Amino acid sequence: MTGAYDHLITIFSPEGKLYQVEYAHKAIRSENLTSIAIRGKDCVVAVSEKKVPDRLIEPDTVKHIFTITPHIACLCTGIQGDSRMLVYKAREKAAKYRFKNGVEIPVSYLANLMAGETQFFTQYAYGRGYGTCLIFFSVDDEEGPQVHKVDPSGYTAGYYAATAGTKEVETMAFLEKTLKLPERGRNNSVKDSLRLCLQAMQGAISRELQGTDLEVCIATRDDTCEDGFGKLQFMSAQDIDNELTEMVESGGLTEYLASRQEMDREDTN
Amino acid sequence: MTGAYDHLITIFSPEGKLYQVEYAHKAIRSENLTSIAIRGKDCVVAVSEKKVPDRLIEPDTVKHIFTITPHIACLCTGIQGDSRMLVYKAREKAAKYRFKNGVEIPVSYLANLMAGETQFFTQYAYGRGYGTCLIFFSVDDEEGPQVHKVDPSGYTAGYYAATAGTKEVETMAFLEKTLKLPERGRNNSVKDSLRLCLQAMQGAISRELQGTDLEVCIATRDDTCEDGFGKLQFMSAQDIDNELTEMVESGGLTEYLASRQEMDREDTN
Amino acid sequence: MTGAYDHLITIFSPEGKLYQVEYAHKAIRSENLTSIAIRGKDCVVAVSEKKVPDRLIEPDTVKHIFTITPHIACLCTGIQGDSRMLVYKAREKAAKYRFKNGVEIPVSYLANLMAGETQFFTQYAYGRGYGTCLIFFSVDDEEGPQVHKVDPSGYTAGYYAATAGTKEVETMAFLEKTLKLPERGRNNSVKDSLRLCLQAMQGAISRELQGTDLEVCIATRDDTCEDGFGKLQFMSAQDIDNELTEMVESGGLTEYLASRQEMDREDTN
Amino acid sequence: MTGAYDHLITIFSPEGKLYQVEYAHKAIRSENLTSIAIRGKDCVVAVSEKKVPDRLIEPDTVKHIFTITPHIACLCTGIQGDSRMLVYKAREKAAKYRFKNGVEIPVSYLANLMAGETQFFTQYAYGRGYGTCLIFFSVDDEEGPQVHKVDPSGYTAGYYAATAGTKEVETMAFLEKTLKLPERGRNNSVKDSLRLCLQAMQGAISRELQGTDLEVCIATRDDTCEDGFGKLQFMSAQDIDNELTEMVESGGLTEYLASRQEMDREDTN
Amino acid sequence: MTGAYDHLITIFSPEGKLYQVEYAHKAIRSENLTSIAIRGKDCVVAVSEKKVPDRLIEPDTVKHIFTITPHIACLCTGIQGDSRMLVYKAREKAAKYRFKNGVEIPVSYLANLMAGETQFFTQYAYGRGYGTCLIFFSVDDEEGPQVHKVDPSGYTAGYYAATAGTKEVETMAFLEKTLKLPERGRNNSVKDSLRLCLQAMQGAISRELQGTDLEVCIATRDDTCEDGFGKLQFMSAQDIDNELTEMVESGGLTEYLASRQEMDREDTN
Amino acid sequence: MTGAYDHLITIFSPEGKLYQVEYAHKAIRSENLTSIAIRGKDCVVAVSEKKVPDRLIEPDTVKHIFTITPHIACLCTGIQGDSRMLVYKAREKAAKYRFKNGVEIPVSYLANLMAGETQFFTQYAYGRGYGTCLIFFSVDDEEGPQVHKVDPSGYTAGYYAATAGTKEVETMAFLEKTLKLPERGRNNSVKDSLRLCLQAMQGAISRELQGTDLEVCIATRDDTCEDGFGKLQFMSAQDIDNELTEMVESGGLTEYLASRQEMDREDTN
Amino acid sequence: MTGAYDHLITIFSPEGKLYQVEYAHKAIRSENLTSIAIRGKDCVVAVSEKKVPDRLIEPDTVKHIFTITPHIACLCTGIQGDSRMLVYKAREKAAKYRFKNGVEIPVSYLANLMAGETQFFTQYAYGRGYGTCLIFFSVDDEEGPQVHKVDPSGYTAGYYAATAGTKEVETMAFLEKTLKLPERGRNNSVKDSLRLCLQAMQGAISRELQGTDLEVCIATRDDTCEDGFGKLQFMSAQDIDNELTEMVESGGLTEYLASRQEMDREDTN
Repeated sequence: MTGAYDHLITIFSPEGKLYQVEYAHKAIRSENLTSIAIRGKDCVVAVSEKKVPDRLIEPDTVKHIFTITPHIACLCTGIQGDSRMLVYKAREKAAKYRFKNGVEIPVSYLANLMAGETQFFTQYAYGRGYGTCLIFFSVDDEEGPQVHKVDPSGYTAGYYAATAGTKEVETMAFLEKTLKLPERGRNNSVKDSLRLCLQAMQGAISRELQGTDLEVCIATRDDTCEDGFGKLQFMSAQDIDNELTEMVESGGLTEYLASRQEMDREDTN
Repeated sequence: MTGAYDHLITIFSPEGKLYQVEYAHKAIRSENLTSIAIRGKDCVVAVSEKKVPDRLIEPDTVKHIFTITPHIACLCTGIQGDSRMLVYKAREKAAKYRFKNGVEIPVSYLANLMAGETQFFTQYAYGRGYGTCLIFFSVDDEEGPQVHKVDPSGYTAGYYAATAGTKEVETMAFLEKTLKLPERGRNNSVKDSLRLCLQAMQGAISRELQGTDLEVCIATRDDTCEDGFGKLQFMSAQDIDNELTEMVESGGLTEYLASRQEMDREDTN
Repeated sequence: MTGAYDHLITIFSPEGKLYQVEYAHKAIRSENLTSIAIRGKDCVVAVSEKKVPDRLIEPDTVKHIFTITPHIACLCTGIQGDSRMLVYKAREKAAKYRFKNGVEIPVSYLANLMAGETQFFTQYAYGRGYGTCLIFFSVDDEEGPQVHKVDPSGYTAGYYAATAGTKEVETMAFLEKTLKLPERGRNNSVKDSLRLCLQAMQGAISRELQGTDLEVCIATRDDTCEDGFGKLQFMSAQDIDNELTEMVESGGLTEYLASRQEMDREDTN
Repeated sequence: MTGAYDHLITIFSPEGKLYQVEYAHKAIRSENLTSIAIRGKDCVVAVSEKKVPDRLIEPDTVKHIFTITPHIACLCTGIQGDSRMLVYKAREKAAKYRFKNGVEIPVSYLANLMAGETQFFTQYAYGRGYGTCLIFFSVDDEEGPQVHKVDPSGYTAGYYAATAGTKEVETMAFLEKTLKLPERGRNNSVKDSLRLCLQAMQGAISRELQGTDLEVCIATRDDTCEDGFGKLQFMSAQDIDNELTEMVESGGLTEYLASRQEMDREDTN
Repeated sequence: MTGAYDHLITIFSPEGKLYQVEYAHKAIRSENLTSIAIRGKDCVVAVSEKKVPDRLIEPDTVKHIFTITPHIACLCTGIQGDSRMLVYKAREKAAKYRFKNGVEIPVSYLANLMAGETQFFTQYAYGRGYGTCLIFFSVDDEEGPQVHKVDPSGYTAGYYAATAGTKEVETMAFLEKTLKLPERGRNNSVKDSLRLCLQAMQGAISRELQGTDLEVCIATRDDTCEDGFGKLQFMSAQDIDNELTEMVESGGLTEYLASRQEMDREDTN
Repeated sequence: MTGAYDHLITIFSPEGKLYQVEYAHKAIRSENLTSIAIRGKDCVVAVSEKKVPDRLIEPDTVKHIFTITPHIACLCTGIQGDSRMLVYKAREKAAKYRFKNGVEIPVSYLANLMAGETQFFTQYAYGRGYGTCLIFFSVDDEEGPQVHKVDPSGYTAGYYAATAGTKEVETMAFLEKTLKLPERGRNNSVKDSLRLCLQAMQGAISRELQGTDLEVCIATRDDTCEDGFGKLQFMSAQDIDNELTEMVESGGLTEYLASRQEMDREDTN
Repeated sequence: MTGAYDHLITIFSPEGKLYQVEYAHKAIRSENLTSIAIRGKDCVVAVSEKKVPDRLIEPDTVKHIFTITPHIACLCTGIQGDSRMLVYKAREKAAKYRFKNGVEIPVSYLANLMAGETQFFTQYAYGRGYGTCLIFFSVDDEEGPQVHKVDPSGYTAGYYAATAGTKEVETMAFLEKTLKLPERGRNNSVKDSLRLCLQAMQGAISRELQGTDLEVCIATRDDTCEDGFGKLQFMSAQDIDNELTEMVESGGLTEYLASRQEMDREDTN
């Protein structure tokens, strides 16, 4: 019986479990959304399922990808209110870092700071943990394309491809299978990465995908930027639709898989 | 059994639910009021049911629509005391923003700040959540007519048409059905929007509507205002009555539906 | 079973109820007192039942009507200690307002501030709500005669005639029936209003009324006051007795009802 | 069953009761002491039963009447520790008032401040209420003889004659019966008032009274004091004994009752 | 059933009892020590049973009588840790008084301050009450020999002879019987008082007394001290032994009782 | 039944146990990782099992060994979020020490400070204990190679070889058996120590080890460093693989065991 | 049933017991260590059992005797983390005392301060009590050799010989029997005291003692120190071994007992 140990955040169960943290994960999954971010060559493609809960909502105001700095975006999956709070805190931390150090905050460091924020609420008795999962991504000036995930337990790591939400497990399985290269997609172009994302998302969602069902943000190298930081671009629903159509016509992942096999061959040489 | 997890705000249930937030929604519905705000072309029309609980109350002092700034109003549905507190906080935040930045606060940003306010009370142990739902509306200088809803969970979004209260579900269904245009009412005149609101409200309330049963506020472009912000106008009970009579005589929504079909035809060309 | 949700102020019950607020209302009713305030033409008449719990108490020191400013009075019904605390806070707020703005606080704004005070104790975990109901009244320089009621839930509104206490429901029913004019007593003279109050009070209290059973305060326009604010006058037990005798002799409400019918006729012309 | 609602100070029971306040009254009664203060013409006589719990206690150090200012005394009945704390607070408030305003604190205002002190502990969760009842008395320069009682609930009022403690009800009944004059003892001399007190106390205590069983303080007009404030005099056990003897010899209350009848006659003329 | 009301310090039981205060008294008694302080003519003699719980403890470091100022000592009975804390606080208060007022603190005032300290812990929720009983004694410059007892409830009083601890009731009974003079030992010399103490202690302890079983402190007038304050002297175990032997040889209390009878005779003349 | 005593951090069970501390240990073990640090001659070799929970995670971002200062590293085993928090605190303490004292913090002192940090959370009611075990290691300028372990209870000690995690008991048993020399490995070269670590890790993990399954950090004397502090080197997965292969080929621990026997012989001479 | 009263530190049980304090004592005993400190002539010898819980721990880092000042050491028995915290606090208090007063803190005063520290945690609700027992010892400049024990309840006293831990009762019994001299070992040389300690420890531990099983610290007069303070010397495992061997060979306590008999004879003369 877990009853006795899951009412308080600040205690371990006899098995060393923190039940409230597990329930926070459930809260994320119960939002019925899935999101994916994939690292390619000089790019990161992030896609979030976008479910406008009500057809009277203006779709543009339903967002799951937020810019933190001009170079870093955050893909949030979970309770909307909690996500917004964490996005505000991330912006504040990024701005303070820049003010204090004169340079942009590295995305990996930002992810660590935000993981500290979520860890705090698993240890102290002030309030409940955050019911949201953050995926920070950016094309960093030094480290190149970066994807860092932060979960409610305070866990964080860098990813080749990160997923969150209801279909996290299934999507991850698909990506693990598809992304077999040693560098796991590091040679993928924006196009490759985008197709992969869409394909994975199509797998997660049973109905036919449309541009309005998705939110896509692409971080790429910014050639006009001297310091090497990337830029962030959000795709319009129309562009996503075009991409989806094109993908279906061109036979889905074939192109990518072909190029991958070629790369595999080169690689094994 | 929910008993164990719904006594404390700061814990998740094993299914990842925050019961207190759901109960706060129930508190809103139990006030027995319905409210609607619809975005038209260069206008927003907001209507709240107005139930003077006691015939000895001076009807003018029963208000559900409050001005936050000269350009932004807030339509509150729920516990009166909680609404007033949030209206005061909204006014304070708007005034601080103006003082700090020299320009008016955008209504979308204000909605985000207030959603942060309600989210706070779902996470910390200080007190209960707010039992009220806020719908901010305004004709913004840059974004045009805007309707933003904030609920007790800290959720916020922009809406073509937002509803709250006891008959929220039914009213929303009616509006979804009626507002079929691609831009969802963006071409509607003030008259169109007002009729739509009244019609929707008539559907929500079984008895025959009268001017004293409603509170109506219309935000329109202000031609005398150089910076593009709109103005707010409250309709008198008499004007509402006239409108209702006229609407009944002219056959309800016919005019609007006709114009809509015409627009549909233009649109498909 | 309410048992589980009514022990803590800061939680909603599954039906969205705040039980402690309802119990606070019970606390008011259990004091066994009834009070009435009626708005007339250029006047407000407030009457409180006055039960000296013990014949050794000096009747003058048992008060339910307190002056907040020279123009505003507050009719308190409920736990004496709580009433006094709220009266002190009201005085403080009124004085601060005057100090800060250079003009007297409008009675409607004061009522809103005090409703915020009582709302606070329904949301935070610091202590129990106030077991008292406040009726602020005044002849305002701009808004004329005003009656504003504030209850333990933080609800406030303006009234034509407000009642509170044990017989609140019965008294309210009587007044609703009697006060049928469109402006609900706005044409009533001080005499009319006073008679109405006494009649209503006589209905609430089964035994024969005496001057010592009542506390009466009358706010009227002050002709000597340039800025339009009214003055407050407390009636002596002797004057109340005289009034009661006169009323009985003159056949109770007849005069008033007659004048009302005449006004009704004028009104319908 | 009261069990659930009487463990916390800060909640109402479903009937609107504050159980802890009622228990505090029980705490006062369980101290097994009775006290009386009677207002006469230009005087107040206060008598407290004085039970030295242990014959080894120095009787002078067992006190229930404390001077707050040179003009105001406080008759405390209840838990000794709580009484002392309240007496200290009263002294502090009186001293601050004098320092701030340059004049002595009126006894009625002091009683109101102290009632606020006891009310505080019925509303907030910091600690239990005070298990003591305070009777402030004084011959005030403006209001003349004054008796003000403050109880654990925060209730306060002025009294012709106030009683507290175990035999409060019986003593009050006796005094109500005896003090029938319109002004309720306002014409009584010090001697009359003192006899009345002693007689009432004799009724409350079954055994024969002795000087050492009582503590008597008399506030009278002070002719040497220009500003009209009275002075406080404590009677020695010997003087009380003499008074008791004299009273018994002179046939108890006869003299007073005779004089009262005479006054009644004058009064009815 | 007391179960429900005795777990929290800050609530009364339905009978108005504070159970924790009663348990604190039990804590004192369970230390298995008895102490006595007797006021004589120009002297106070204080004796504490001294049980060295372990024969390896250095007896000098087991103390129950502490000097607060050069003139005031405190005889502590109860939990050692609590006693020490209160002694430190008493020293601090005495030092601050002297610093602020330039004169020594009167022992009665110090006892009142310390009683406030113990009362505090019966009212607030910060922590448990003190499990110790304090007996302050001194030869005061103005009031002469003084014995003041402070208990965990915040009760304090002056005593002719005070006792505390396990055999408090029995010892008190012995002393009440023996100390029959009107002034209750005020004419007793140091020798008389000391014998009385030893005799009482002998009664409380069944085994034969030895010097090492007792701690004795004697406050006497200090002829070398101009301001009339007394001095404190601690007796060595050897001196106590001598006294005990002498007492047994001289037939116990005979001398004292004889002198008392003589005084009685004088007294009745 | 432990139920009653393990819900609160701040209480002992009747057997004097702190259950929450034991559960924190369970939390460490449930992370399914094992780690080892061994002290050699002028070196420390630390190895952590590295389980990339998800093949899409960038393995470089999964770290269990963190540098605290250029000379001190910390091997963390347990909840990732808790580890990171403690690493940040350790870095802060080390930096402050250096700033305040002008020299590097000794690793033993740092371990003591961090043990104080974890002890704090076993005594106060603010939050739960840390679910992580820290092993600090360094080649100190004065004390030479040092390994200090800090556990959630606040226990800390220096070790010849420390292990933590799921297979702590088994690994410790293996190391105790192997490290039999009086100085327990003090004569071991880096190579010896590394082999020993790998062998122990191989024993703990049933499957065949690979470079990517491990994280290895080696602290050695830094000849370029004048003040005697060591440096820290992290091995690449490739180097670990080479080492593993070489170890298997050379017959496991044979070389080390041989050298050890030789040393034993020398030693016994 | 103790269940109800032992979950909270801040309440007494109906018998006046503080259960948490008793459980803290159990926590000390459950550490399975025993320690002894004996006062000799101009010396104190302190011995702690030293159980290195793990053969991989560097024995030097397992310490139970800590220096507080150059003259005062503290022998800690109980939870290691709690001991360290108290040692840090003792060092801080000693340093502050010296800084403020210009002289070293007397060991008895330090023990009193630390007992206040442990008492605090038995009275307030902040956290659990300390699960450790402190024995401070020193050769003081004025008081000579001193041994002061502080337990979790806040009790402290000076000792001829103090013991703590699992075998406290047995060891104490042995020492009481052996140390029969009036001054209880005050004439014992360092050698005598050390032998006594070792013999007592041998009795407490069933297996044969070795130097590595013990930690020994000896405080002696420091002839090079002008102000009379002693110095502290820790014995190496080798020296302890030598002592043990010598002791066994010389027939255990014979020498000491012989000298004691001689002293007894002298003493009785």
